[in-house]
Amino acid sequence: MSFSPLISELIQSLRILPGVGQRSAERMCMHILGKDKTGALALANALTTAINTVKHCQLCRTFCETDYCSICTNPKRDHSLMCIVETPMDMLAIENSGSFNGVYFVLMGRLSPIDGIGPKELKLHALASRLKQTDPLEIILATNATVEGEATANYIIQMAESHHKPVSRIAYGVPFGGELEYVDSHTLNHAFTARKSIEPLNNKIE
Amino acid sequence: MSFSPLISELIQSLRILPGVGQRSAERMCMHILGKDKTGALALANALTTAINTVKHCQLCRTFCETDYCSICTNPKRDHSLMCIVETPMDMLAIENSGSFNGVYFVLMGRLSPIDGIGPKELKLHALASRLKQTDPLEIILATNATVEGEATANYIIQMAESHHKPVSRIAYGVPFGGELEYVDSHTLNHAFTARKSIEPLNNKIE
Repeated sequence: MSFSPLISELIQSLRILPGVGQRSAERMCMHILGKDKTGALALANALTTAINTVKHCQLCRTFCETDYCSICTNPKRDHSLMCIVETPMDMLAIENSGSFNGVYFVLMGRLSPIDGIGPKELKLHALASRLKQTDPLEIILATNATVEGEATANYIIQMAESHHKPVSRIAYGVPFGGELEYVDSHTLNHAFTARKSIEPLNNKIE
Repeated sequence: MSFSPLISELIQSLRILPGVGQRSAERMCMHILGKDKTGALALANALTTAINTVKHCQLCRTFCETDYCSICTNPKRDHSLMCIVETPMDMLAIENSGSFNGVYFVLMGRLSPIDGIGPKELKLHALASRLKQTDPLEIILATNATVEGEATANYIIQMAESHHKPVSRIAYGVPFGGELEYVDSHTLNHAFTARKSIEPLNNKIE
């Protein structure tokens, strides 16, 4: 026995959501049908509207419903600094940290030859043409510290250098609040290799 | 900074789903917009159709899109046995175990005075009128082994007895495959109280 056709269809449709398996989808379906029909209709509505309306910012490629996103059109931002991130979520994390006041370029992915994602699939020529059009004083790479993120960073470093643009990378190492015993060995390795010497202080303790 | 209005709305709408917090909703939203627009539109469609079409079976009250569900209309089922469960999910679990060939009555909840759910809110009069109309040879209670499930079971036992219908409960105890050391003390307690004496075997080992 299984559920009636419409209910089965709803359960299968819910499974497109990341992290939702058969059991969670069944629970979601029962919750919706039993307790939150209004919310479910609102969700259906929000899905349709978003899918039909949301597009990419023509400058930074993040998701937005207008031609240009609120960051790219903000005159208070420093348009001479460009931070390159993999996803809009990364962009949001940086925004929420309040550590950057420039503009972004969102790759919407990473180079991953094993999944057939090369520079063409990432549409990196859009980045090249943006580098030509605008003239950023500094390009800050903030790709993830994964194998694919590294590969993507290296590719973009070469691209920036061929355009004679100065390029930097955010610092990788032991996170603040992280206890050394829980930090993975790859990060620790990097933290030692990239260690910084401490300049002698002028005010000596006597 | 936050997402653009439409995206924020979609994220908020996704949070009506049980088990979905802010972060999961953001991940779901990005996945949908970036990778599965077709699936998202299908989901929106399935939601709207299900909400507008799915109702309760007029006999057993489970969710279905027809007046009577496929179990209540199945002549091969034993209509003299009626199993009372809390939710359609419980009904599905019993169906999938293949342990029961009768019909069901789905309470769509449980008695929970602390949440303001009494016999009236559970519409238990529908059960009473079904007990009058049909004449089940046995009513099998399969409510959950929780405080609310117990209270619900006791209420229905009284109701069945006032209608002079024989009533039974499924067995509670240590689950098969469960190791004793991981079974909670309440279950073990019940398993000891409800122990069964073993009838002496006729074939003795000599």
